[in-house]
This record gives sequence, C-alpha cells and structure tokens, in this order.
Amino acid sequence: MPTLTSAQRRAQARQEYDAFLAGCPSRQLLDRISDKWVTLILAALGDDDGSCGQVAGPARAMRYSELSRQLAGVSQKMLTQTLRALERDGLLTRTVTPTVPVTVRYELTDLGLSLHQAIRAIKSWAEEHMDEVIRSRETYDAHAT
Amino acid sequence: MPTLTSAQRRAQARQEYDAFLAGCPSRQLLDRISDKWVTLILAALGDDDGSCGQVAGPARAMRYSELSRQLAGVSQKMLTQTLRALERDGLLTRTVTPTVPVTVRYELTDLGLSLHQAIRAIKSWAEEHMDEVIRSRETYDAHAT
Repeated sequence: MPTLTSAQRRAQARQEYDAFLAGCPSRQLLDRISDKWVTLILAALGDDDGSCGQVAGPARAMRYSELSRQLAGVSQKMLTQTLRALERDGLLTRTVTPTVPVTVRYELTDLGLSLHQAIRAIKSWAEEHMDEVIRSRETYDAHAT
Repeated sequence: MPTLTSAQRRAQARQEYDAFLAGCPSRQLLDRISDKWVTLILAALGDDDGSCGQVAGPARAMRYSELSRQLAGVSQKMLTQTLRALERDGLLTRTVTPTVPVTVRYELTDLGLSLHQAIRAIKSWAEEHMDEVIRSRETYDAHAT
C-alpha cells in the first residue's frame, strides 16, 4: 500500500466524510465541537489569554480549578461533561497525580492542538467584530419595529 | 482622531471584549456562532461543496429551498430562526424578488465572509480527523469497561 502524504490523506478523508449529510459521523462531531465551552476550554489550554491575537501561545496543562476560574460562569456539571467528552474524542489528556488531595491536570493532545488552531479564530472573530454586530442588530431592530 | 489601521482596530477590540468573561457580549456572540447550523449555512453560502478543501470558493446567493436541501435534516423552524439571527447580526442579506411565488435569496455579507473564513476550518477539521476521533473513542470506551 503506497504511503499517502498528509495532503492526500486529508483529501481522502474529505471524500469519505461530509458534514452536510445528516447521517455522517462528522455531522455529529461538528455538533460536538461547535460549542462555546469547547471553544473556551481549547482557548484556555492553548494559552489564549484574550490579548495574544493571532500568535498562538504554547499549550499548557491546567488544573480543573484553574479552568473553572478562567471560564467564568461555567457550571461544574457542564465543565466535567465537556472535559470528559474531549478526553474521549482524543483532544485532551487527563493526568491524575496522587498528591493529597489528588491533582488533576488537563492538557491538549496534538489532535486537540490542531483543532485549537482552527477554533481560536472563532473566539477572536467574536471579540474583533462585536461592534459591527451590535450596530447591525440596532439597524435590524429599528427597521423591524 | 487618528485613523487606526485594521490591525490596531482588531487589537483595540480584543482589549474591549473578552469571551472568557460571562457578562461580555462577545461570550453571547460566541455562543450564537458556535452552532452546527451556523457553520453549515456559512459553509453552503460560502460555496464549500465538501471537496474544495482549503481553497475558498466564491460566495453565492441561495434560495431557501436550496439551503434546506443542502443542510440535510434541518427543520424548517431551525433553518428560519438561524437565518433570521444571522441576518440580524449582519452576516447575511435576505433579498425578496416579487416573482410569483416570491423568490427569497440569502447571501453572505463581507462580515459573514470574514466569519466564513474562520468557520470553514472547523467543518474541514471535523471531516479530516473523523477517523482519529473514532479510534480514540474506541480506545477510551475499551478502557472504561
């Protein structure tokens, strides 16, 4: 079997999966990763501090409590569920160190880092274009009434 | 007032908004655009046919019925709601032509196109890395039992 280049592998995968199709597993994966908590967890672990712009910082390991603090307003249930799903999908690792109390750290895998590259653009876009969106809503609402 | 370059404007916007903060409008905008139907509508209007890879095709106007067909499985209610929200946010235009019956076309704005550039990478990622994610899930589930 010939060895494929990574570009060829990607092209092949795109032929095998199509998220436009309701029954395609990639539709369900898209649904999974199209989630604000997923975006914010990946941004936090990928070391986006909200001011580094297009320059990706190094990935870092974070404790549960650190993540919980950075993602203001996330419920414990939601954070736990989302972290477990991301671990199952191979996007992050969960490492338990037997200290007292135990230390649990989360870190992006290479697969998680590859998604982080794509997803960080979404968070930046939301922050950069907020003013334009607010102006558009005001115009829309003024015409709707 | 000095004219800012677009890079300076983006840097300023990133200082004013931070999606990590629960009360920031950009958190709510991130939630709005982190949605599989938003991703698929932008991909369809941005002319991603599922095989064009990293090369963005030209944007195109699509009728409601065309969108409904391409986004297999979307309910009429969900499609209508999502299109209205995207129009309100200034991401697409809705043009009504008074034919019999009337023709309604949707087209990305420049703002919508800028988000499309970011969001299309998410759809491609889901399709390209599906096999890796499936393998990871199998490993995770095997260890969990």
